[in-house]
Amino acid sequence: MPNLHNQDVCPKLTWWQQPIAALDLDSQAAAVARQATLTKPAGALGQLETLAVQLAAMQGRAQPTLDRPWISVFAADHGITQAGVSAYPSAVTAQMVSNFVHGGAAINVLARQINASFEIIDVGVATDTGQMTSVIQAKTAQGTANFKQQSAMSMTACEYALQAGRSAVQRAIAAHADCWIGGEMGIGNTSSATAMACVLLGQAATQLTGAGTGLAAAAIGHKAQVIQAALDYHAVSGDQPLRVLCTFGGFEIAALCGGYLAAAQAGLPILVDGFISTAAALVAVRLQPACRDWMIFSHQSAEQGHYRVLEALQAQPVLSLGMRLGEGSGAATAFPLLQLACVLHNQMATFAQAQVSQQHDQT
Amino acid sequence: MPNLHNQDVCPKLTWWQQPIAALDLDSQAAAVARQATLTKPAGALGQLETLAVQLAAMQGRAQPTLDRPWISVFAADHGITQAGVSAYPSAVTAQMVSNFVHGGAAINVLARQINASFEIIDVGVATDTGQMTSVIQAKTAQGTANFKQQSAMSMTACEYALQAGRSAVQRAIAAHADCWIGGEMGIGNTSSATAMACVLLGQAATQLTGAGTGLAAAAIGHKAQVIQAALDYHAVSGDQPLRVLCTFGGFEIAALCGGYLAAAQAGLPILVDGFISTAAALVAVRLQPACRDWMIFSHQSAEQGHYRVLEALQAQPVLSLGMRLGEGSGAATAFPLLQLACVLHNQMATFAQAQVSQQHDQT
Repeated sequence: MPNLHNQDVCPKLTWWQQPIAALDLDSQAAAVARQATLTKPAGALGQLETLAVQLAAMQGRAQPTLDRPWISVFAADHGITQAGVSAYPSAVTAQMVSNFVHGGAAINVLARQINASFEIIDVGVATDTGQMTSVIQAKTAQGTANFKQQSAMSMTACEYALQAGRSAVQRAIAAHADCWIGGEMGIGNTSSATAMACVLLGQAATQLTGAGTGLAAAAIGHKAQVIQAALDYHAVSGDQPLRVLCTFGGFEIAALCGGYLAAAQAGLPILVDGFISTAAALVAVRLQPACRDWMIFSHQSAEQGHYRVLEALQAQPVLSLGMRLGEGSGAATAFPLLQLACVLHNQMATFAQAQVSQQHDQT
Repeated sequence: MPNLHNQDVCPKLTWWQQPIAALDLDSQAAAVARQATLTKPAGALGQLETLAVQLAAMQGRAQPTLDRPWISVFAADHGITQAGVSAYPSAVTAQMVSNFVHGGAAINVLARQINASFEIIDVGVATDTGQMTSVIQAKTAQGTANFKQQSAMSMTACEYALQAGRSAVQRAIAAHADCWIGGEMGIGNTSSATAMACVLLGQAATQLTGAGTGLAAAAIGHKAQVIQAALDYHAVSGDQPLRVLCTFGGFEIAALCGGYLAAAQAGLPILVDGFISTAAALVAVRLQPACRDWMIFSHQSAEQGHYRVLEALQAQPVLSLGMRLGEGSGAATAFPLLQLACVLHNQMATFAQAQVSQQHDQT
């Protein structure tokens, strides 16, 4: 369990306040210049071009490559499920951890298909997962407190969960990963993410509350009421992102946030998944705005609030397939498109090489 | 050159009027049933679920697979380029054919990445491509006539180009392909496709005319004027799809149309590319409505008219990345997502296998 004094934090500056890596603007310019020479009308590959240029700036080379994705899925339970906000029982969190271990979940299938390294971390599942092979143990507590009338977690617990995310990124970097995908599993976590997004974006619960894992319309109304009552009760200010995370967050959301901050500090490209992950990304960007430079947003999910959070982050998601599963599944699904963006950028012939005429002068 | 009497056409029923294959509704139902058992909330994989079900219906088995995509790119020139409607000179068509042969174009890079078979067919390039290794020769003429004041092609020429598409599909089937992607290259062909779409959808040229390979605003206005003048001059009715194809089409567009009809007859899944390809698909569907069953629409391009043509076909494209290159590039980019849809469908654990609890009863 947490020992927060045994960490490499500076007394004045906690680790997540330390500087974010800078993008390489020379490599970015070189990638833009290369795009203009390739045998296609300028801009004709659309977002695949901007992705290649973005990855060039991140990787510090004019011709980026993506070969070693790393997926860390964080699992935790949520006290707010006591308020009847989810279509599934809390027990499903631990059951799905077992499913991840046995390779049967969507994210396992996707990880195999894209040749990703995969790990599952217990950061706060209600039951013991210690007997499950290969589950990384970083349990902060057996689920958060019910945020209806108390804070979901203490600052100490939050720091422990942030560190769990950082440790995952450190493992990815040690294994020479070239892209980090964070995923989450936690029954009740759309309520958590929705409450956080409401405070950070200054929205009412009815604006952002969605179906989560599949609530019917009446149940969505109940969920919005529960969230709004909690927002009113706590009255947290949106300019205190860590306080927002402690009050309404989940351990898996805090871990994602810590992972994003650590990846951005280390200069590791981040592929952000769906609604929960984007809410965690919003906290990270509010804590350290430069963190945004290292994020690629994989998809716009079917969850109602996701669009608004993406908009606040000025994100242009790669996919919009109506997915709403979490686990990192949207990010893993978008990954092959990032690879295609790189290989097109690197392997297409230039106009000069192929002896193809350029555009008419239209001036 | 064309010898239309040496084909397997029935005197009363031309080949493309012969029946379209039927979807397998039992396999479709079995795939829907399987989706409901997988360890995820119902519908949580969004369009990836509907794609898997659609492919099950096409392949006649509850668990579809996609491993052997076949890409046929048809190249041809357009008389309408004499009216100054393109940002690139006509010579680029042949230059790009050479680029395809040498493996340097976007579609070559994509084909290698998705392990697709690739072929390039000259159905009407203005110059001789006979000396270029591996270009399949099916040249109808050295480009279409300028449709400003004459028909782009005769019915005889159109039938020859339709057959060129059918032959490509026959090669794909002989090689046991499990998905057909048609692509096109032809400077001037957005003008051709736009004119066709205007007639078939009953729209004015200003509604559907876009930038093509990259026209500036003033040049788009000129292009729309040229197209509208031609629409007024010919006054073809939208209920005569073959006449529309002959009047405004290109040989590569007719070949795509023939390919779609042949693939639908043979029950080979079709992955439709961008604006030009979708215009060809619209002609095929107007000729044989059941042809629509065999089409998956890969992407919505940046070309202005594409949205309207997709809408008319009730298509829900997989991607929307602002691509506008043609060559089959959007379809090849979407292909990995279809593969992910299949592997998720086939490899995910069921609730029973993973011992995961199902949803609460919300009734």
